[in-house]
Amino acid sequence: MFAPSTYIARRAKLAQSLGSGKLLFLGNDETGINYAANTYHFRQDSNFLYFFGIDRAGLAAIIDAASGEATVYGDELTMDDIVWTGPLPSIAEQAAQTGITRTAPMSALADALKGGDVHYLPPYRPANTIKIHHLLQVPVAEVKARASQALILAIIQQRQYKSAEEIVEIETAVNITNQLHIQAMLCARPGMTEAQVHAAVEGVALSHHTSLSFPAIITVDGQTLHNHSHKNSMKPGQLLLVDAGAESHMRYAGDMTRTFPVSGKFDARQRDVYQTVLNAQMAAIHALKPGTTYKECHLIAARQVAEGMKAMGLMHGNMEDAVAAGAHALFYQHGLGHMMGLDVHDMEDLGEQHVGYGPDMQRSTQFGLGFLRLARKLEPGFVLTVEPGIYFIPELIDQWRAEGRFKEFVNYAALEGFKNFGGIRIEDDYLITETGARLLGGPVAKTIADVEALRAGSM
Amino acid sequence: MFAPSTYIARRAKLAQSLGSGKLLFLGNDETGINYAANTYHFRQDSNFLYFFGIDRAGLAAIIDAASGEATVYGDELTMDDIVWTGPLPSIAEQAAQTGITRTAPMSALADALKGGDVHYLPPYRPANTIKIHHLLQVPVAEVKARASQALILAIIQQRQYKSAEEIVEIETAVNITNQLHIQAMLCARPGMTEAQVHAAVEGVALSHHTSLSFPAIITVDGQTLHNHSHKNSMKPGQLLLVDAGAESHMRYAGDMTRTFPVSGKFDARQRDVYQTVLNAQMAAIHALKPGTTYKECHLIAARQVAEGMKAMGLMHGNMEDAVAAGAHALFYQHGLGHMMGLDVHDMEDLGEQHVGYGPDMQRSTQFGLGFLRLARKLEPGFVLTVEPGIYFIPELIDQWRAEGRFKEFVNYAALEGFKNFGGIRIEDDYLITETGARLLGGPVAKTIADVEALRAGSM
Repeated sequence: MFAPSTYIARRAKLAQSLGSGKLLFLGNDETGINYAANTYHFRQDSNFLYFFGIDRAGLAAIIDAASGEATVYGDELTMDDIVWTGPLPSIAEQAAQTGITRTAPMSALADALKGGDVHYLPPYRPANTIKIHHLLQVPVAEVKARASQALILAIIQQRQYKSAEEIVEIETAVNITNQLHIQAMLCARPGMTEAQVHAAVEGVALSHHTSLSFPAIITVDGQTLHNHSHKNSMKPGQLLLVDAGAESHMRYAGDMTRTFPVSGKFDARQRDVYQTVLNAQMAAIHALKPGTTYKECHLIAARQVAEGMKAMGLMHGNMEDAVAAGAHALFYQHGLGHMMGLDVHDMEDLGEQHVGYGPDMQRSTQFGLGFLRLARKLEPGFVLTVEPGIYFIPELIDQWRAEGRFKEFVNYAALEGFKNFGGIRIEDDYLITETGARLLGGPVAKTIADVEALRAGSM
Repeated sequence: MFAPSTYIARRAKLAQSLGSGKLLFLGNDETGINYAANTYHFRQDSNFLYFFGIDRAGLAAIIDAASGEATVYGDELTMDDIVWTGPLPSIAEQAAQTGITRTAPMSALADALKGGDVHYLPPYRPANTIKIHHLLQVPVAEVKARASQALILAIIQQRQYKSAEEIVEIETAVNITNQLHIQAMLCARPGMTEAQVHAAVEGVALSHHTSLSFPAIITVDGQTLHNHSHKNSMKPGQLLLVDAGAESHMRYAGDMTRTFPVSGKFDARQRDVYQTVLNAQMAAIHALKPGTTYKECHLIAARQVAEGMKAMGLMHGNMEDAVAAGAHALFYQHGLGHMMGLDVHDMEDLGEQHVGYGPDMQRSTQFGLGFLRLARKLEPGFVLTVEPGIYFIPELIDQWRAEGRFKEFVNYAALEGFKNFGGIRIEDDYLITETGARLLGGPVAKTIADVEALRAGSM
């Protein structure tokens, strides 16, 4: 945890933003896998962590926005709890660490919410939907819609700017993330399964007594953007795409992607595509600075992708026009990146429109650009990922070809030979500074020469 | 998956048991960790797996008990799904593999439930509570209470007897489980953290492209029965308790515990306690056979524990009386074991009273015996764990001593020196046969000599 003063200041600022009303925060509960008592690893809600810091299941809290007073609700352990799950500090002790002196049992929460406006956040855990239904007598189907827009906007306004102490935590997460990527590059061999690399990657996070920040993508089928199957054996000539990150102990995220040859060396075609992705990433990184929109950075990357595809004979015509029309999205389907902080897609529970677009920008409905999670004007203190990619998705190629879509830009005949190529993505995490951007965490091999050298050392 | 005939026969038997009504099965959905799209590893509901076999999120099914006809409900992938999460067989193809020809989109489910009795199971996932609330207009607070007792009892009556093909799957899970325990015994060293052993243990399951069957307990604080913290460094002289199991690819569970010395050799006191636990386990295993109640087996183990404690000078008096009174539960707080199958605590979602006690037995309210999950008369085909243990829980010792509890049996003065001992548990998985019981999976070192030999080979 940070010092109590951090949490006190965060809550004071939030109370001031709202001015009045009761601000209700529901922490997360344990979640059953196949019955209630067999639980997934516990993950506290990120908003709860940001304002209260207590990483423990079964808590709630209220900030009285008028007075600024905060109360933590939760039940102390019984002797049966101690026998089964071990002793813990009391809730009063844990609340004191976050600068709060008022605690009460959970049974007092419903009464504390009576009278006056209650502001709550849109729940992503059905257990919290049910709690709000019972606590506030809101019909289940209306719980999400009645969440407080004022509270959402005030929290985004705070959480989007990362403080110096948060940057330290994020760099801790990114440096563990770096280790797990190096481990993957050192251990992967032809004949191994993706699952074995997954074990090595997740093992690095577990060894640090933490968790992955999202389910790892470790696949020779890199053309599936969020591929969570690890059942393939890796063959010489294939590429392995590893998109994985770890959390710091305070639950800040790292998120990184590397794509490397299973056999140690890229072949000629893989070099061309890889270099195009790297050019796209470097061009986007070069453009990062306050005042630039992330949408512009995305389009810079998209034009690099299109030019690379044209150089390889897979596209033709004017690439400015192709990108404006969205033809490049046959190869680069997703957005350039997203905010990162206590969540790997930071604050996604509060709404991507608010976090990534704000009141003045509308999300595109174009295929590809519509997947861009962050488009807004960049500001110092933003932390974000830069992660372009190129993918050959057979189903998508077939569909577009059948529809004759963008045939003025796409060379479908040449594409047939690429349907078994897979996909390449390269991703790093950046902080927007006053003058530009800074890589978070130490650098990890990403040029073709550096990746091949690291792989050669391991084979 | 098993052959379609297995699922057809299971559903036919269930339909026959109920006779009439619509039997509603809700599969599990993806579950968000810190926002909806960042999900825990997917685990299908075990009842859904048992009757329909399809390991995919977002499905439901109805069996019409009168006609025996089954329908699977779910939505096919869109092109966006294929781009992000990859292609999958159609729901019709997956349903065909389980012998079902009728499929429909999820939007058809509510109408299909109209008219006639609907039987559903008590949900343990809040998402399914909400679905039942919406589908059947049951108030959220009443969803669990209105679950069908007839359906619960009919399913337990089927799932409690493991078929030959299920035993093969369970042994597959147990043999992966064996590997992760051997890995732990080979890798643990003084100076390593519990988290590093955790990484090695979970790594074995991940390498097999499967998951742990429950959160691993890997701790030098073995006195906490379900200790999921792995933050300690391991010191010479300590014991490491590893209670962990893996799932087979069909999601059958293994569950095993070994406790071994961090430095490679047990000290004299550790040998005495370990041998007592092993004697308790072997005595209980020896008693396993059809017709014997598992409560008797538990009490046989409890008496061994009490006699061992007496031999060490920690208890005194008549140990039959001590066990009858519950004094042994100061050291052996939990039950001897539980059913195991598609769930590590098999069918716990259906209710431990039904699964472990049945209509004729009441659960004890005595501390210790009250934690016994399985008490019923054993029958061929039951699969269960045998896992006695001895634990020195400082908070419990202090509480009982302060209350003067069982001072006629407990030597509290001698106990003071054991408050830093920790705990020891030994666990294996057994099948009840026609004449006795059979160990599932290959044997793994558990005598003092065998454990020390395995550890010596690794140090």
